[in-house]
Amino acid sequence: MIKTKILIMAGGVGSRFWPQSTEQRPKQFIDVLGVGKSLLQMTVERFVREYSLEDIYILTNRCYFELVEEQLPQLPSSNIFIEPSRNNTAPCIAYASFKIFAEDRDSVMVVVPSDHLILKEEEYLDSVKAAINFAFTREAILTLGITPTRPETGYGYIRYSSSMSEEVLKVNEFLEKPKLELAKAYLASGKYLWNAGMFIWRSSTIIEALKIHAPDIYEIFSAGAGLYNSEDEKEYINLNYEKCPNISIDYAVLEKADNVYTIKADIGWSDLGTWGSLSQVLPKDANGNAGNLSNVILVDSRDNLVRVQDNKKVLVRGLNDYIVVDTSYALLIYPKKHEQEIRVHANLG
Amino acid sequence: MIKTKILIMAGGVGSRFWPQSTEQRPKQFIDVLGVGKSLLQMTVERFVREYSLEDIYILTNRCYFELVEEQLPQLPSSNIFIEPSRNNTAPCIAYASFKIFAEDRDSVMVVVPSDHLILKEEEYLDSVKAAINFAFTREAILTLGITPTRPETGYGYIRYSSSMSEEVLKVNEFLEKPKLELAKAYLASGKYLWNAGMFIWRSSTIIEALKIHAPDIYEIFSAGAGLYNSEDEKEYINLNYEKCPNISIDYAVLEKADNVYTIKADIGWSDLGTWGSLSQVLPKDANGNAGNLSNVILVDSRDNLVRVQDNKKVLVRGLNDYIVVDTSYALLIYPKKHEQEIRVHANLG
Repeated sequence: MIKTKILIMAGGVGSRFWPQSTEQRPKQFIDVLGVGKSLLQMTVERFVREYSLEDIYILTNRCYFELVEEQLPQLPSSNIFIEPSRNNTAPCIAYASFKIFAEDRDSVMVVVPSDHLILKEEEYLDSVKAAINFAFTREAILTLGITPTRPETGYGYIRYSSSMSEEVLKVNEFLEKPKLELAKAYLASGKYLWNAGMFIWRSSTIIEALKIHAPDIYEIFSAGAGLYNSEDEKEYINLNYEKCPNISIDYAVLEKADNVYTIKADIGWSDLGTWGSLSQVLPKDANGNAGNLSNVILVDSRDNLVRVQDNKKVLVRGLNDYIVVDTSYALLIYPKKHEQEIRVHANLG
Repeated sequence: MIKTKILIMAGGVGSRFWPQSTEQRPKQFIDVLGVGKSLLQMTVERFVREYSLEDIYILTNRCYFELVEEQLPQLPSSNIFIEPSRNNTAPCIAYASFKIFAEDRDSVMVVVPSDHLILKEEEYLDSVKAAINFAFTREAILTLGITPTRPETGYGYIRYSSSMSEEVLKVNEFLEKPKLELAKAYLASGKYLWNAGMFIWRSSTIIEALKIHAPDIYEIFSAGAGLYNSEDEKEYINLNYEKCPNISIDYAVLEKADNVYTIKADIGWSDLGTWGSLSQVLPKDANGNAGNLSNVILVDSRDNLVRVQDNKKVLVRGLNDYIVVDTSYALLIYPKKHEQEIRVHANLG
């Protein structure tokens, strides 16, 4: 049996769902879907169906350690890996990889975000399993590629070339978020997938790839090789982690390596990156309104997303295509079509 | 010197400013103007400039006794007159009149609402003083008549005939809220004033008027004549008050009596009866927005009234002519032009 470690990245600081999410409580820690669980809790539950909680790890910033413990009380504290500073995903994944490798040299790692939605969980776990099987026997860097369903301009794309097996495709290129015309061409060609930022590889494979493509990061973590999972690890990491460059794993490794593969996955995925994308996946009332509507009276109002405090009575009239979010500290009333400007107007930087 | 008693009626249950006002805390007890004082506190302060607090009385429902004590800690508790049931203004004023008469048979009463705005306080106090002087020496029922400044359809009107003196006019008729065309005719004729519900009379005069025009009410209170301001008053009132018919002082007395007079008063008055009338008297920003805007960011938004919790950050875009009210228990986002329907939609009955 392949020793598998699930690594859930939960250090992000995104406040795109302001005012529901904030720097103190970013998106992964909030119940954006209104189902009674945070996105992090949903991500963990998704894996617990097939993997032991002992093999699930949370990578997060020190600011969020207590939030993780609070939301995942069953998780062993030693399974929370703390990044002492924010240096993007490459250092964070490198650190976790050295720890996992030190524990088990044959382990396969599954690295996933904590704040995405996956509607087809069985298909997802099947795709992950296929990726694990492929990665275990090869020096392969695998990423899940989501079958596109629309010419989305908000996602990065993966171009693939030849098939390696029935499921696995060789990656040719990673592409930035396209303009609409280009996104349409990608969709029509059938040779492009959405990059969902989910990775599968042996811990030894990614460490080798870091050595070649990101030697500065590799040096920092390999110099501490004898210390991982020991009492001395923390001091070393606190001293050295922040010396890492600020760089994503995509830029540092995936765009440079030539052993990158993808598995086509049709898993009902959304990165829930915008209020608009959240709207798309939420159930609607007869007038297209979504959100927690049980105490909300909507008159002459269509296609709004309303997320309010459960104990409040809300009366709205004559709003169409708006985002209405009410929390204890803030109130947002904003047209959906301008949602990209919320951050600027709310002075969130 | 004329012994004057100021009676402030603060028993109303209006929730027209929902969700800022509620049945638990009606309009007179809230700071609708955002000045740090409730309308009741402002009403008392207006009179304290010329009258002793010992001569100021609050008429209220038993539900609001504690609110009155809390908002007016300097006021003697015995100056709070409690109506044990809601029977409109005639029984409430009758009860107060018998108590005041029992204390001082020569006293003049000034009866005013607790939830109106008066911008010109000196002119107001001068008008009240003129009315007191007139009422003291005659069997006269006096009401202040506000010089109309627009063809308002939300107020009742007073038609006057001849002048009694430089200031005092004989009242010919009280008129219901008119349609717009009629309101324009009233305004053009110069013979009509707004009825502000402020009355001045000797306590003996109103008791005599009740005896003639509202004998059922008169009987109830005159039967307890020996008990007022004694230990036995409360029991008698608790037993008998609710037997009174539910009727306003206007219907019960003023529309029937022939000794009714008015004093023309230009005092910057508003009954603050609607969000719209509140909007008219509040200061505006450059885009016509009013309210407590210090933590409110308004983008592409004009002519709104925004009243939010002080500790909340608010971001609004693309709203024009709306009422936005946020409290700890409710949120209202509603077009000003439909404000009459707020009560229906909020299921306030």
